[in-house]
Amino acid sequence: MLSLFHAPGTCSLASCITLEEIREENGAEFEVNKVSFANGDQHKPEYLRINPKGRVPALLTEEGILTETPAILLYLAQRYPEASLAPLDDIFALAQLQSFNNFLCSTVHVAHAHRFRGSRWANEQSSLDDMNAKVPENMTALFIQIEETYLSGSEDNPWVMGANYTVSDAYLYTIARWLEGDGVDVAALPRVNAHIKRMENRPAVQRAIAR
Amino acid sequence: MLSLFHAPGTCSLASCITLEEIREENGAEFEVNKVSFANGDQHKPEYLRINPKGRVPALLTEEGILTETPAILLYLAQRYPEASLAPLDDIFALAQLQSFNNFLCSTVHVAHAHRFRGSRWANEQSSLDDMNAKVPENMTALFIQIEETYLSGSEDNPWVMGANYTVSDAYLYTIARWLEGDGVDVAALPRVNAHIKRMENRPAVQRAIAR
Repeated sequence: MLSLFHAPGTCSLASCITLEEIREENGAEFEVNKVSFANGDQHKPEYLRINPKGRVPALLTEEGILTETPAILLYLAQRYPEASLAPLDDIFALAQLQSFNNFLCSTVHVAHAHRFRGSRWANEQSSLDDMNAKVPENMTALFIQIEETYLSGSEDNPWVMGANYTVSDAYLYTIARWLEGDGVDVAALPRVNAHIKRMENRPAVQRAIAR
Repeated sequence: MLSLFHAPGTCSLASCITLEEIREENGAEFEVNKVSFANGDQHKPEYLRINPKGRVPALLTEEGILTETPAILLYLAQRYPEASLAPLDDIFALAQLQSFNNFLCSTVHVAHAHRFRGSRWANEQSSLDDMNAKVPENMTALFIQIEETYLSGSEDNPWVMGANYTVSDAYLYTIARWLEGDGVDVAALPRVNAHIKRMENRPAVQRAIAR
């Protein structure tokens, strides 16, 4: 049985939603282990044995442990093809999906991380305050780009990859949930806003949030 | 014919090396378009039409444009399976490869970027100086982790994924070339050092560097 190490409020929600979508499709069971960032669980020796990087998500499989959201999402989509969570038979479309997920992890998530995690990259309090102050501007600009480039806003193509829901939607929704806290005016992003509402209507999303 | 938008000294080298490996294997031709960061080409309207994110690499295919290194590398490995550049028939191993590439793009490349690109995340010169000063420490710690976790150092398993060369090796080598400039003592990283030397013996790498 797959076992996810998940911290509420973090990017591991995308993997949790995807596991719920798969369970809905084919009944596959999985286990969720909560990692409490408030208690600093991610830095404790027992968790560092699972993920030496001290981050979430980590997915325990029969063959070993996987880390990094885009890799876990691709693995789940490939392992459960009947759930239709990625365009597995079209290498160009799959690369577009991976490109979007990589943009989220390497640019969008990183822009957000400068709000609370600035001490990864600088030491002085004045630098951390400076980084923190720039987060609303950066996240707004990135989400305007997401609106314009990746979300059509049409009823026929409501998802990141167009007509079909994919793992990218779970990942986008996970990060979009941080926008209010990041000081972004979400109401000014109608397509992102519609995407959030559409996601919140999915039973799998509701179950993942309730965990 | 595939066409790569490449800026020397940047992460697009990984895609360039991979295209050279494929040409060596099956003769497939490709085109390289130089994007001069010194001239600010990446911010000019003609390039922003190719990649609105203003970054490299971008790969022009018959079906459209792909961006983000891990996505381009997966696409090339899937498009040219005869070049054996990824474990395409083993979804767990492929996820491990993607996990490594995602770690490089979202953590290692980002740590390096705080040397010259701090103005993405902060405004004050004192913050940029503070970020810059922390780069040697961060890049050293990340490459110690790479030595310990991903490189066995054995002759039988000299590559990131073990016995077989993959796209991850091109990506690791590309970032390892930045270490000296980042103030890291490369001589103190014997496995990384051996990996660099092994890469530099590959004709495809030599041709990519010569471009």
